[in-house]
Amino acid sequence: MKRLNKIINILKEKELSLSLAESCSGGYTCYLMTEIPGSSKVFKGGMILYSLESKNKLLKIPWALLKKTQGVSAKVAGLLARKIRKKFNSDIGAALVGFAGPKSKNKVPVGTVFLSVNYKNKTETKKIILKGPRNKIQKEASYLLLELINDKIK
Amino acid sequence: MKRLNKIINILKEKELSLSLAESCSGGYTCYLMTEIPGSSKVFKGGMILYSLESKNKLLKIPWALLKKTQGVSAKVAGLLARKIRKKFNSDIGAALVGFAGPKSKNKVPVGTVFLSVNYKNKTETKKIILKGPRNKIQKEASYLLLELINDKIK
Repeated sequence: MKRLNKIINILKEKELSLSLAESCSGGYTCYLMTEIPGSSKVFKGGMILYSLESKNKLLKIPWALLKKTQGVSAKVAGLLARKIRKKFNSDIGAALVGFAGPKSKNKVPVGTVFLSVNYKNKTETKKIILKGPRNKIQKEASYLLLELINDKIK
Repeated sequence: MKRLNKIINILKEKELSLSLAESCSGGYTCYLMTEIPGSSKVFKGGMILYSLESKNKLLKIPWALLKKTQGVSAKVAGLLARKIRKKFNSDIGAALVGFAGPKSKNKVPVGTVFLSVNYKNKTETKKIILKGPRNKIQKEASYLLLELINDKIK
């Protein structure tokens, strides 16, 4: 909760708005942003793009890239961060894709997650590998995305 | 968890796909849908439309209606359910809007939530009033939306 208050306060102080695109975390990062009263001043909203089809249809991620990567790659995360920012017209766009398990695809290990932040026309993407059961991976990845946003704006 | 398994199993058995639009619950319903492995077979994704602007821009909810209701009304919930279904091209669209607190607007009490399900070209909307702190209201409303979906498809 402290971690969350901190990032929301920094966004408020700097008057920056945020939007999020999530895949394997299923909306948990968005939920975290709304858990604290007053977040509506900075959080515009987000999209949960759980299927490849939805990533292609709603944020125009190229189909060939999605098929090749099954939606989990640094490039997909970066594109989602940039495109969600434009869609919501926010100052910051951030995205999270990965395999939360129990199965993965493309021989990429379960727990592999790509986090990406687009801010001031720059995109920074980070690969992390998490351990544990599915919902632990989803929650931890969400917190780490908020921390990455924090690092980029402070 | 049992409640969740049940609804996902019914969707799977009937081969029905679902998409969700959320406001005050901030993505918690989407997260619940992804907490259980295998949900990607039925859950296409969703949108968290936390600001009035995003409801208008992304799902074309009329601005006059949003200003008048501050985004919290049966009509807004119904429109969101119908429009999210079309956006994701899913069999079922469902939506949740409300005031999770600590403040409300338009003299509508905190804890007022509208749940809506669009399925087979029919929209059913339900008003509920929940008590408790903000995150209890967000979580309980999310479970009740999944139960309403369950009722409509079984």
